[in-house]
Amino acid sequence: MVELSFFNILDLLGTSAFAISGALAAMNRRLDLFGIFIIAFVTAIGGGTIRDILIDNTPVTWMENTVYIYLIGVVTIITIIFRTQLDRLKKSLFLFDSIGLGIFTITGVELGIQNDLNPIICITLGAMTGTFGGVIRDILCNEIPVIFRKEIYATASIMGGLAFILLHELYFNQDVIYIITSLTVIIIRLMAVKFKISLPSFYLSEERNPNLDL
Amino acid sequence: MVELSFFNILDLLGTSAFAISGALAAMNRRLDLFGIFIIAFVTAIGGGTIRDILIDNTPVTWMENTVYIYLIGVVTIITIIFRTQLDRLKKSLFLFDSIGLGIFTITGVELGIQNDLNPIICITLGAMTGTFGGVIRDILCNEIPVIFRKEIYATASIMGGLAFILLHELYFNQDVIYIITSLTVIIIRLMAVKFKISLPSFYLSEERNPNLDL
Amino acid sequence: MVELSFFNILDLLGTSAFAISGALAAMNRRLDLFGIFIIAFVTAIGGGTIRDILIDNTPVTWMENTVYIYLIGVVTIITIIFRTQLDRLKKSLFLFDSIGLGIFTITGVELGIQNDLNPIICITLGAMTGTFGGVIRDILCNEIPVIFRKEIYATASIMGGLAFILLHELYFNQDVIYIITSLTVIIIRLMAVKFKISLPSFYLSEERNPNLDL
Repeated sequence: MVELSFFNILDLLGTSAFAISGALAAMNRRLDLFGIFIIAFVTAIGGGTIRDILIDNTPVTWMENTVYIYLIGVVTIITIIFRTQLDRLKKSLFLFDSIGLGIFTITGVELGIQNDLNPIICITLGAMTGTFGGVIRDILCNEIPVIFRKEIYATASIMGGLAFILLHELYFNQDVIYIITSLTVIIIRLMAVKFKISLPSFYLSEERNPNLDL
Repeated sequence: MVELSFFNILDLLGTSAFAISGALAAMNRRLDLFGIFIIAFVTAIGGGTIRDILIDNTPVTWMENTVYIYLIGVVTIITIIFRTQLDRLKKSLFLFDSIGLGIFTITGVELGIQNDLNPIICITLGAMTGTFGGVIRDILCNEIPVIFRKEIYATASIMGGLAFILLHELYFNQDVIYIITSLTVIIIRLMAVKFKISLPSFYLSEERNPNLDL
Repeated sequence: MVELSFFNILDLLGTSAFAISGALAAMNRRLDLFGIFIIAFVTAIGGGTIRDILIDNTPVTWMENTVYIYLIGVVTIITIIFRTQLDRLKKSLFLFDSIGLGIFTITGVELGIQNDLNPIICITLGAMTGTFGGVIRDILCNEIPVIFRKEIYATASIMGGLAFILLHELYFNQDVIYIITSLTVIIIRLMAVKFKISLPSFYLSEERNPNLDL
């Protein structure tokens, strides 16, 4: 078992929120029990797994610590049982999901720094850890990933990663860095959703084939 | 060349069955010759490749042993030539496919044990090895993976992995473990299909957005 | 910064062409600013990333050399600004895209040889490096990868890989190998498009379920 620090508790909360998000998406697509668990699992661990593979941190985290697989199993079952009631908790879920994004951003940036990677790559790793679980969830559910259409999600993670790097350069205490990074991600996301901020799209003048073949 | 043991022969049979399944799916989607080969290839080697990447067993198996790439090429050509006749062989194909699932489950669990991973992770690795080739096939063909809707496929693999771990703990002979694991997977799948057993689905009361954004 | 050899310049041109192709596809799907950048990024680095993961060349290339991430960012912004004008440059884009395919084929085959892999596996690695960025782009945009339907793209890469291996066996100078391989890929692709050459498709006589379940 892991020794539960404040960071671990937040991590497990984030994992749970992502698992709930995946389970709800799977039920929405009318998948069966096994499909629901798998989608919950990849949503919760997908981002961290891709991060671990890219920097060769293998066997990946969830393989070395079974608490993740058990937690996701329990959370999925609870989500299925209380699926109707969870509609009313939408705001709490949104908060958990943002906490997850904040924490997973931290783990990505942290691992990048530990591997002596360039700051912009560390921020990219943080954003990938936070967002790619949702990308895989959407691909498996056969949809264009929502992150590509509602970008403030990834933007919040990138801003958090930037805060992490700046504070790290200034030799701040690790706990302080973790808390400020999480809060940056969560507050930007809350503000963006509250004030309906979004990045612009750019349309091509006419329908055309994006492939470069003549 | 590999020295052909009983296990190797089963492995090649399983690879062939998965390649046939991929080639048929690709022809069904009207892909061209190259598309058919690629889909057959990823269906046959996808699960093992993800397994190898997750536990850092690289270069991955099919890179170190060219018999796979040649076998899949030959099987794809035979599948294209006899595509009409293969309809009548559906039952034999189903059997080969189940044999493949059984064998790929074994290779995943076995590698997990060799890497000293926790039993539940070994079973997960076995199920991923057996099923993810088909998941990639379905993603490339732009469909929600069939495994998420007809779950007994993965359930059979998980039951086989469980049998493998139990027999391994009891110090059974490796050949015995292999045979019983394969038979467990194959028999559960045959029974499930014969008696139309499936896991329940859980629908959300009303159509709603699964994403947690407010 | 990298020291810019002729090869590096071609590499950056190829990366740029792939980034443009991704950005145009994303604008065509009406994605927002962040979505456009991500699709441009994965199209440009996706093939090389999968290559690096499969042969365990980690941290992957774009993590160790930040020139890629900056270049793709700049190219994406330029593509957005000049999106209307780029329609008229279609032929130049097609040429850049083919140059990219040629160069990425080289990097894949070269890394395969350096890892003492079998020639057929080296050619496969080359084709994957050249084509998988586009495959990921199409999956993220929720389409069946175009490569599976217009196969001459991959065929050109495979022919180039074959040329590379032959010249390498004959102890040709590396620069000569690079140039002839690139030209092979580019010329085959130009010829195929000019003369509308394509591989055959094979249809199943009637609509049927490709899955092997009874």
